[in-house]
Amino acid sequence: MLPGIPGEELDAVFTLHKLTDAIQMKTYIREKHCRKAVVVGAGFISMEMCEALRGIGLETQVVYRGPRPVKKWDPEFSKLILEELGRHQVSMLTNTETIAIEKGENSRLRLITNQGEVETDLILFALGLKPNTELAEDMGLQLGKTGAIQVDSSQRTSGEGIYAVGDCCEVYHRISRRWVHLPLGDIANKQGRVAGRNIGGIPMTFPGVVGAQSFKIFDMEVAATGLDEREATASGYQAVSAITWGNAIAGPLPEAKKLGIKLVADRSSGKLLGAQAVGEMGAVSRINTLSCALWSGMDLDEIAYLDLAYSPFFGGAWDVIHLAAQALKKQLY
Amino acid sequence: MLPGIPGEELDAVFTLHKLTDAIQMKTYIREKHCRKAVVVGAGFISMEMCEALRGIGLETQVVYRGPRPVKKWDPEFSKLILEELGRHQVSMLTNTETIAIEKGENSRLRLITNQGEVETDLILFALGLKPNTELAEDMGLQLGKTGAIQVDSSQRTSGEGIYAVGDCCEVYHRISRRWVHLPLGDIANKQGRVAGRNIGGIPMTFPGVVGAQSFKIFDMEVAATGLDEREATASGYQAVSAITWGNAIAGPLPEAKKLGIKLVADRSSGKLLGAQAVGEMGAVSRINTLSCALWSGMDLDEIAYLDLAYSPFFGGAWDVIHLAAQALKKQLY
Repeated sequence: MLPGIPGEELDAVFTLHKLTDAIQMKTYIREKHCRKAVVVGAGFISMEMCEALRGIGLETQVVYRGPRPVKKWDPEFSKLILEELGRHQVSMLTNTETIAIEKGENSRLRLITNQGEVETDLILFALGLKPNTELAEDMGLQLGKTGAIQVDSSQRTSGEGIYAVGDCCEVYHRISRRWVHLPLGDIANKQGRVAGRNIGGIPMTFPGVVGAQSFKIFDMEVAATGLDEREATASGYQAVSAITWGNAIAGPLPEAKKLGIKLVADRSSGKLLGAQAVGEMGAVSRINTLSCALWSGMDLDEIAYLDLAYSPFFGGAWDVIHLAAQALKKQLY
Repeated sequence: MLPGIPGEELDAVFTLHKLTDAIQMKTYIREKHCRKAVVVGAGFISMEMCEALRGIGLETQVVYRGPRPVKKWDPEFSKLILEELGRHQVSMLTNTETIAIEKGENSRLRLITNQGEVETDLILFALGLKPNTELAEDMGLQLGKTGAIQVDSSQRTSGEGIYAVGDCCEVYHRISRRWVHLPLGDIANKQGRVAGRNIGGIPMTFPGVVGAQSFKIFDMEVAATGLDEREATASGYQAVSAITWGNAIAGPLPEAKKLGIKLVADRSSGKLLGAQAVGEMGAVSRINTLSCALWSGMDLDEIAYLDLAYSPFFGGAWDVIHLAAQALKKQLY
């Protein structure tokens, strides 16, 4: 998605939606001997592209209108992500609006922002995804409140015999109990198979999602599932939350790495509503287990005593999952 | 536990139950300049001790009465474990009964077996654990069918005001629906807290276990949860199982490592009954997620479409968990 500012049509301005976008950008970088890149936006794609651009040796800077990267995660966690970016020489301009792009003097482009100007060889806009509903609208299909195509649990649209799957359509969120737009590759894969089965005459319904997601930024795993406090409150829950710091493996081992987990729960039922984790190792693993707990509607008491495959090399006798559930449980009283 | 054979009282013969056992063995190895160790038995402790002994440079050999190491795991997986032992110069004598221990000629000890003699500087018996019920029996407390102390969900024994926790007592297995003896450190920790709460007047019940367990053997993660086919059948289920090979992370990445998952399910209900995983990475992570699925009584259909935190660095868009559930599901028809 481009921001709609003057100069965004210039050669060295990219977005990243299709495989060919990536190939074009890579070719451009090589042929034009680019040395500096600016990534506008600070979501998943921005973070992953920072790593990729640094990996091929480009000086890399993030420009973002918000105060901190990946806003889904708690400020305590995004601070760590910012530090990780810094450790790998990625600088970040926050609270910065892009105003225009011009041809540069020393570099190919000049990005004009409300915080001053940045010279760069290329600009990648990673501003998120608008669902592609053009065809659906032309056909008169119903869109959902999110602006994505409305589907039912069989992936059927409002048009008879017409199915939709993937980033263009909505998906049922089991925790918010709402249809949301969550453009992720694994969800698209699942929906595709459900639609295929229904079209092929072997009925199947898609059970929905809990919002599990992750990305890697240099040496850090970042993962989340379910709802954050804001989303939980908006869905009618009484959200309480706590951050717990523990170790990815047993604390006394020399390889132990700090792991932070934030849990969000509903005060009235004690049920888990969401989780976030950040650390050098073990974050995604914990979020997957907690996604399964969320899926099943577990409460904090169950999670606090859940049977996990303990061995010092993979966690503590009380895993950080248990500790986090116990810590948040105390806030319910 | 010692096997009760002549010579087992010799100085260089060890078991490993208490912290002081480990310290004694370590001191002995250092002071006597031991160069070769034999580990009798092939369970968790044996495997972990092979790694520890190789780590301090001892020539190490496993002697085991059975046909393959860690018999809980499928033969296809224990073959990999055997290869991993071999890659680290640990040899293994299988189908071998120990008969006696004598003072050796070139080494300190000579272990006589039904397959011949082995010279060694020390012998570690890692033959498993008999629950320590001496005190309980003296007090007239009821033992369970497993021979461990019988407790209820509050950790109360049959004696008024007497509680038991840890390796000496039984624990409720949520999948076999039986009280079992499963001497693992994390279970002991949980039971301890439950007993403490009840003794302290804040009632709490222990929800039981699903049998999650893991160990590391050199560069390999080995984990399991729930029941294997034999246990499932013994518990009255119609066990079906399948092994699925996938990757710990997205297949095309250069760091991808093979990961094997075996699932066991009940034919009539389609519910998961157990899982095993082996691989250089990601095995414990999958088993933890599947432990949570087991805990909640999920069936294969749910597991096949479970929402996990997909990112290529941490799994495929279809994780090996999904693939394994889909593969086994096909066997139910």
